[in-house]
Amino acid sequence: MFRTNTCGELRLADAGKTVTLSGWVQRVRKMGGMTFVDLRDRYGITQLVFNDEVNAELCAQANKLGREDVIQIVGRVNERESKNKHLDTGDIEIIVDVLNVLNTSLTPPFTIEDNSDGGDDLRMKYRYLDLRRNCVRKNMELRHQMTMEVRRYLDSKGFLEIETPMLIGSTPEGARDFVVPSRMNPGQFYALPQSPQTLKQLLMVAGMDRYFQIVKCFRDEDLRADRQPEFTQIDCEMSFVEQEDVISLFEGMAKHLFKTIRGVELTEDFPRMPWSEAMRLYGSDKPDTRFGMEFVELMDVLKGTGEFGVFNDATYIGGICAEGCASYTRKQLDQLTDFVKRSQIGAKGLVYARVQDDGTVKSSVDKFYTQDVLQNLKSAMNAKEGDLILIMSGDDTMRTRKQLCELRLEMGNQLGLRDKNKFSLLWIVDFPMFEWSEEEGRLMAMHHPFTHPKDEDIPLLDTNPAAVRADAYDMVCNGVEVGGGSIRIHDPELQDKMFRILGFTHEKAQEQFGFLMNAFKYGAPPHGGLAYGLDRWVSLFAGLDSIRDCIAFPKNNSGRDVMLDAPSNIDQKQLDELNLVINIKE
Amino acid sequence: MFRTNTCGELRLADAGKTVTLSGWVQRVRKMGGMTFVDLRDRYGITQLVFNDEVNAELCAQANKLGREDVIQIVGRVNERESKNKHLDTGDIEIIVDVLNVLNTSLTPPFTIEDNSDGGDDLRMKYRYLDLRRNCVRKNMELRHQMTMEVRRYLDSKGFLEIETPMLIGSTPEGARDFVVPSRMNPGQFYALPQSPQTLKQLLMVAGMDRYFQIVKCFRDEDLRADRQPEFTQIDCEMSFVEQEDVISLFEGMAKHLFKTIRGVELTEDFPRMPWSEAMRLYGSDKPDTRFGMEFVELMDVLKGTGEFGVFNDATYIGGICAEGCASYTRKQLDQLTDFVKRSQIGAKGLVYARVQDDGTVKSSVDKFYTQDVLQNLKSAMNAKEGDLILIMSGDDTMRTRKQLCELRLEMGNQLGLRDKNKFSLLWIVDFPMFEWSEEEGRLMAMHHPFTHPKDEDIPLLDTNPAAVRADAYDMVCNGVEVGGGSIRIHDPELQDKMFRILGFTHEKAQEQFGFLMNAFKYGAPPHGGLAYGLDRWVSLFAGLDSIRDCIAFPKNNSGRDVMLDAPSNIDQKQLDELNLVINIKE
Repeated sequence: MFRTNTCGELRLADAGKTVTLSGWVQRVRKMGGMTFVDLRDRYGITQLVFNDEVNAELCAQANKLGREDVIQIVGRVNERESKNKHLDTGDIEIIVDVLNVLNTSLTPPFTIEDNSDGGDDLRMKYRYLDLRRNCVRKNMELRHQMTMEVRRYLDSKGFLEIETPMLIGSTPEGARDFVVPSRMNPGQFYALPQSPQTLKQLLMVAGMDRYFQIVKCFRDEDLRADRQPEFTQIDCEMSFVEQEDVISLFEGMAKHLFKTIRGVELTEDFPRMPWSEAMRLYGSDKPDTRFGMEFVELMDVLKGTGEFGVFNDATYIGGICAEGCASYTRKQLDQLTDFVKRSQIGAKGLVYARVQDDGTVKSSVDKFYTQDVLQNLKSAMNAKEGDLILIMSGDDTMRTRKQLCELRLEMGNQLGLRDKNKFSLLWIVDFPMFEWSEEEGRLMAMHHPFTHPKDEDIPLLDTNPAAVRADAYDMVCNGVEVGGGSIRIHDPELQDKMFRILGFTHEKAQEQFGFLMNAFKYGAPPHGGLAYGLDRWVSLFAGLDSIRDCIAFPKNNSGRDVMLDAPSNIDQKQLDELNLVINIKE
Repeated sequence: MFRTNTCGELRLADAGKTVTLSGWVQRVRKMGGMTFVDLRDRYGITQLVFNDEVNAELCAQANKLGREDVIQIVGRVNERESKNKHLDTGDIEIIVDVLNVLNTSLTPPFTIEDNSDGGDDLRMKYRYLDLRRNCVRKNMELRHQMTMEVRRYLDSKGFLEIETPMLIGSTPEGARDFVVPSRMNPGQFYALPQSPQTLKQLLMVAGMDRYFQIVKCFRDEDLRADRQPEFTQIDCEMSFVEQEDVISLFEGMAKHLFKTIRGVELTEDFPRMPWSEAMRLYGSDKPDTRFGMEFVELMDVLKGTGEFGVFNDATYIGGICAEGCASYTRKQLDQLTDFVKRSQIGAKGLVYARVQDDGTVKSSVDKFYTQDVLQNLKSAMNAKEGDLILIMSGDDTMRTRKQLCELRLEMGNQLGLRDKNKFSLLWIVDFPMFEWSEEEGRLMAMHHPFTHPKDEDIPLLDTNPAAVRADAYDMVCNGVEVGGGSIRIHDPELQDKMFRILGFTHEKAQEQFGFLMNAFKYGAPPHGGLAYGLDRWVSLFAGLDSIRDCIAFPKNNSGRDVMLDAPSNIDQKQLDELNLVINIKE
């Protein structure tokens, strides 16, 4: 037997007991004739004591231990003289009688501490060492707890977890698929699922009524900062439901998670905001509502009321009011201007206006506007003495709003309004059914082609499809879309019409989604659902900026696992069996 | 709102209530002026009543309903006159006031009944209809319950569920990998995991201490009857453990499942049988111990004691005693002989001996042996009057034992000794470390190259590796291997030696498993684990002969999903992006 106890469980009440512990050497300290070793495992740290006077040989052995060596000890639990309040085991120490080195360790390439000296690349290459760090391990524990609670909640609501296949067919609509060559079906490929969307709809046709699955999904996209080629979804679907049923059940799940995991009781209903309202007030379909600073449209106030050509030519002018920021220096304001001009944001410039202590307004466009107009501005913005008004404009309303959104978030950061321990949740509803794709020159489904239009907007499908709103909903927390879903189409004719609007020929729709369309002919129930991004949820609860640290073995921005050194070349024999030839274009 | 209740929950106590139900039309019956509709959902069946005299129009509508139409009704719960004891809702019926057809159904290609008229191929093509059948749906519910209980048990024991990546590196050792071409890393491939074996070992190096995962695994093998290219494993690993710790914990899990899912209390420890003993007594490393009929080796009794050349040349002669089967007719015995001569079994023949009512033995080789020898046979077999002794022999002990094993199982079937509601569990232990591969001309790892040899056998690695036994264990239930695992090597030098014995050059070992060997240099703890086959467990509990019906969307023997029609061709654009050319050899 390797241990009687873990390194996290011994207390004062155990004093006098003889115990066996196993773990890693966190630290060795010599103090006079005593040697102290911090022994670590997943559960905590226990202090071991070796006394040179009592057993010189054993103490000499202990002095030779290196960081991360794996040892086993037998000893007696003893009350500490100087207790350590920061450790759960801080009241005791172990007087060691037997020391057994189970395995040695090379010196780790970085320190196994919360504040490690290891850079990102090194940490990823030695991820198995990185995971030993308290702060990273805690994320794995949190993830486990969250999935346990999700399952408990959904099980209690009658949901069945049903596994859908990983080797399915490729559907070129949407993001790029990862594909898997089939040896037994030469020249043919499986695809890995981008989500089990169509499969869960088939499960509803199959009468499963309430389905969920915590499931890996795959997208072969060019990776941005916070994307992974494989990610995990909490995927759910329900039959005989309307939007209200889905929203209420999954709002309940969010509240359950906040309560059980974070100890936060959310008693109020989450606000619901139409998509158009979210775009108008925050320039985003995932607004961070931990703070106000809503947009005010200023077309009436500033367009044509002065000689400023930029505003006079604008299709959209909007402002935000940063409370108490009139004291911003010229340098700070220049930095904000540089911020919005960065290529990722792409604005042309930024106009500001300070409300001074005497109530007058001093702006960067003073020469174009009278103080009267500026007072109108102050009043429209509901600004008071000491506030700073920031204004952006442009000829594309949506694009300008998105730029202003970035500025608002930056101001939120600067003013400390985005506290990671404060949570603000809401539902975004009434999404447009379609969005226009310049690239494709056609309407695209904003969510996916199976989304049900709002009943009252169905007539618009024939006359003005761009105006059709969908029974679609996203749950947003702190500016992060944590989940989203929709009521689905269950009527094969309506689905057919939808495909036509999306530019599918009948043949193409049949080829790609025939299995689903056919299934709908055999008594499909009304149904709808939702999918949560597990990685996002965990990183939100963990207070992480990136999803990477809540994934055990993440990939880097080139889609590589640097620890495993994957992907890699495969044997010619494997290629031959798959009937494949590699042909890399220069 | 689509329903106030499900079709499975209304009882006599609800009589008088007005309810709304939604579901599928299972059956429509006209009796006089009344029409009865059985309305079905996942939760049960509720009888609807339409009365021609009360509402002729509504009743006419009901008469037009077809099987599997989806309807919604509003009505009043009424006590039935003739109650149906076979239905949970059999005490009540609904007098319908409002009928709303939500969706119609074409006539299904087979009946949605437990005893369906649909063949396997049709059922798989329309799997979403097949899943509506009570008996198939129940398997999905069972699978959900089992995974919930597995998670509850392991969570209570401090295990963390940690997701390991699906896109990893290819390791040509072992079965064939499914590979995934990487677009971002031209010419390189990921592989889908055959199991998370090395990753869970890395998690132990990472100090995760107790890991589990219910996880999809992939093997590109030529599919036999009960294999699927993707299957699900309950994958577990623990640190600081010996074989005894792992066995005791997972025996506890099996008992927990039997108790919570099947209501069977298994109070005794599961027997443990060395592999060599299992081969000697049952000719199998997964013996069905629901019945005895153990092998008796008969070399002393029958070799050289008579003129029968087949036995006199044999390396192995073994028999089983089928109680009370002396009455088997010549035809039955011929059928048994044909059975063992089938190409799947490949025996040359079968010798039998009946113990007659007067105690004498009458055998098919009477002319070669004296009655004295046959009496010795009877006594060696512990056979009594009325028993039938069946004997097989050959020049390859293992092969002959496997043939005799098939015969034993067949006799178990014929005698009704393999009751699906009786469960007999045991551990097979002390597996050989290696087995000789004729094909490769070298020793191969019987489990995998990371298995720890028994401490006392380590010296044999240098002198007689074929004799080395491993710290490996399989859990067997009713002749099915439901799980297996081992203590792993955590010492890089021992691992190195193992790779050498397995014929790996240092370079090849480094190329394929370098990431693991390197990790072992940084303080790997002693560790071991086990993996259960979830599909097997569920089919065992469900009493199914195949794993297919406990998988929502299984593939056929060519690895095809006939419902999705996958795999399939992909666009040239996709191939180009992946730098691949298809080259099918004629």
